[in-house]
Amino acid sequence: MRETENSVVAKEANRGNAERGGVDKGTVELRPDLLSGVSLPAAVIHEAPLAHNLAWMQRFAEAHGARLAPHGKTTMTPALFRRQLEAGAWGITLATAPQCRAAFAHGARRLLMANQLVGQANMAIVAGLLEAGADFYCVVDGVENVRQLGRFFEERGLRLVVLIELGVPGGRCGCRDQAGVEALAEAIAAEPALVLAGLEGYEGVVHGDDPAAAVSAYAQRLVEAALALESAGHFEVDEPIVTASGSAWYDLIAEAFQDASLQNRFVPVLRPGCYVVHDHGLYREAQRDVLVRRPDLQHGLEPALEVFAQVQSLPEPGLAIIALGKRDIGFDQLPVPLRRYREGGAANATLSVAGWQVTKLMDQHTFVRLPEDADDVAIGDIIAFGASHPCLTFDKWRQLLLVDETLEVRDSLSTCF
Amino acid sequence: MRETENSVVAKEANRGNAERGGVDKGTVELRPDLLSGVSLPAAVIHEAPLAHNLAWMQRFAEAHGARLAPHGKTTMTPALFRRQLEAGAWGITLATAPQCRAAFAHGARRLLMANQLVGQANMAIVAGLLEAGADFYCVVDGVENVRQLGRFFEERGLRLVVLIELGVPGGRCGCRDQAGVEALAEAIAAEPALVLAGLEGYEGVVHGDDPAAAVSAYAQRLVEAALALESAGHFEVDEPIVTASGSAWYDLIAEAFQDASLQNRFVPVLRPGCYVVHDHGLYREAQRDVLVRRPDLQHGLEPALEVFAQVQSLPEPGLAIIALGKRDIGFDQLPVPLRRYREGGAANATLSVAGWQVTKLMDQHTFVRLPEDADDVAIGDIIAFGASHPCLTFDKWRQLLLVDETLEVRDSLSTCF
Repeated sequence: MRETENSVVAKEANRGNAERGGVDKGTVELRPDLLSGVSLPAAVIHEAPLAHNLAWMQRFAEAHGARLAPHGKTTMTPALFRRQLEAGAWGITLATAPQCRAAFAHGARRLLMANQLVGQANMAIVAGLLEAGADFYCVVDGVENVRQLGRFFEERGLRLVVLIELGVPGGRCGCRDQAGVEALAEAIAAEPALVLAGLEGYEGVVHGDDPAAAVSAYAQRLVEAALALESAGHFEVDEPIVTASGSAWYDLIAEAFQDASLQNRFVPVLRPGCYVVHDHGLYREAQRDVLVRRPDLQHGLEPALEVFAQVQSLPEPGLAIIALGKRDIGFDQLPVPLRRYREGGAANATLSVAGWQVTKLMDQHTFVRLPEDADDVAIGDIIAFGASHPCLTFDKWRQLLLVDETLEVRDSLSTCF
Repeated sequence: MRETENSVVAKEANRGNAERGGVDKGTVELRPDLLSGVSLPAAVIHEAPLAHNLAWMQRFAEAHGARLAPHGKTTMTPALFRRQLEAGAWGITLATAPQCRAAFAHGARRLLMANQLVGQANMAIVAGLLEAGADFYCVVDGVENVRQLGRFFEERGLRLVVLIELGVPGGRCGCRDQAGVEALAEAIAAEPALVLAGLEGYEGVVHGDDPAAAVSAYAQRLVEAALALESAGHFEVDEPIVTASGSAWYDLIAEAFQDASLQNRFVPVLRPGCYVVHDHGLYREAQRDVLVRRPDLQHGLEPALEVFAQVQSLPEPGLAIIALGKRDIGFDQLPVPLRRYREGGAANATLSVAGWQVTKLMDQHTFVRLPEDADDVAIGDIIAFGASHPCLTFDKWRQLLLVDETLEVRDSLSTCF
């Protein structure tokens, strides 16, 4: 995209905001040098690592005979959904009915809602999606919910396609054992409006002294439960779906599905979400473990999401207050200062943040303890922060800025939380 | 508002969402009974305690000879700004330049930005507000920032009205001592584009073994610093502003200002934000302390903000998973289950949540440990949750629902984060 086009994109994005009466935190103006027309703090996605991650995970899934349905709840950014689908994704995973509606409104046709569908208003949203032609799947884990769904969709004259969720004792949702799975399959069969099309799980809530072993054992249970349902003739589709995986243990899930040759009789679906921009915390650690387990996976995921913010105050020696807060960045872990720029300077003229230590985050302020020799810090200096994890950074923003390696803004990406 | 009008409001709100391509999480449909047309989770503001709080804090400020400039960053909800101004507020306090722009766009003319103005793009936003006629104030705490502001606004041919921030050693922003305040006043005087119009502080970052004593001592320092600046002739306005106070220690600040009879020569301004909907955590505790200190303040603030969410799964005895997560509600403290309703039931037919214990919050799920005798819980049951604190609940929502005592939706309030 050339600079003039870029400016047009940015201006149009702004006009949209003004028209609807809201104002986004990060506003793009005309000057492309080092975000200098941008009101900071602003969330920034770097194009090169984004493109790398999109291709990397798609390739990973395909190499393991699986389909990819990236979890859209991470970003709720339609422009990223489009790129995931263009890269070859089978569909988009979502967490709630309103999220599914938003993704569908932006062109995602196959929607995997990896949660139970609860509440009349949410069922009505899904009914609307089905009537509009969506290829929609949700999960069930209890007879009561199955009856509620059966009644609602029968009254609407619609058929709802469901997957049974398999959980673990002490975990989150999902049937706790095979007997529960079988009983639920019977209950689904008794509801004319429901179609059983597969099995779903989420290994991210499986714990144990040896987490990798616990996840692998759970993946094995998923495989066995799927095969048992198939043997018993419970699936009402030719190629049932078997699906699991977030962005931490996707390798173990994919291997279990591949080792069982599920792809010959099922549609194995992986659902990582955070991979798309990766992070500088929880998922960076998880990725290190993946690469230890799988040294063949060269050049793994790269962090693509940062939040840029400015030094607001230097009120006493050794302390910088940054205009960045809990409303701007995820705080599972304290944000990590990555690089510093002088405002108005060039993108390749970075200044040191060696020894900079974030000590506290408030709603709109970040406290940084500076090293003793940090005598070159100026009010207005721009700090690029990394965060953990991406879901709780994306949801702070109505727009994120896509930038190239020179920090020129290439696009402004709207979210639909 | 009658039911038919209410329905129109709700439908218009939805249409606005569809037009701009985004979809809000909480969508209002036509049936007004117990939110049953509303996709949950949804954030709900109860009209009666809201109205009470609006009047209560305005009365408190006036009784102490102070003006009220409620901190708008809490809600970023223009409909609430309007009600605060209609109740008699002197202006709206905000934290950032984009927040000021949003408040101004929605009719707030007097804007007190209780932060340093940093960054060329943010200065440009403020310049635009000044040119549009805003009565704008921001704070300064360092010579470097003063020079940046002086240069920027002189080049624009504008005058920027500033207040000096007084901080505490080890605190957040602000001059650490009176010498710093005096030096800064000289620096401001040397900048033709800047007008020194008062003194600002924030007692919420003051700590000590006896917090109340520390806050009172800080309030006294504010008073003395203001008087000293006045005596030295540093203020360039007839009635300089002296301002402090969040929603925890406003009584001590107001008393210090009143005891010094500041209202005769200054404009004392209180800036609480969270009071408007209060909370079920940090501020409830703070309010108890206020009422212990000030037993004359009868019938204190009342919590007005709740998030309604539904039971999604009952996967094993004693465990309920609620469709509510970190993306829906503040989590400084774990959310508190307050009441339960059967979906489709009446607003006055509440069910028990005695012994319900939230144990964990994930992005989209809440774990509740149920008491042993909780045998009447159904999938889809609606739980009203209280939270701490309001700033980090409001910013999860693009719209909140204003409801009456029967839980009929009276209005849909848009936020502009």
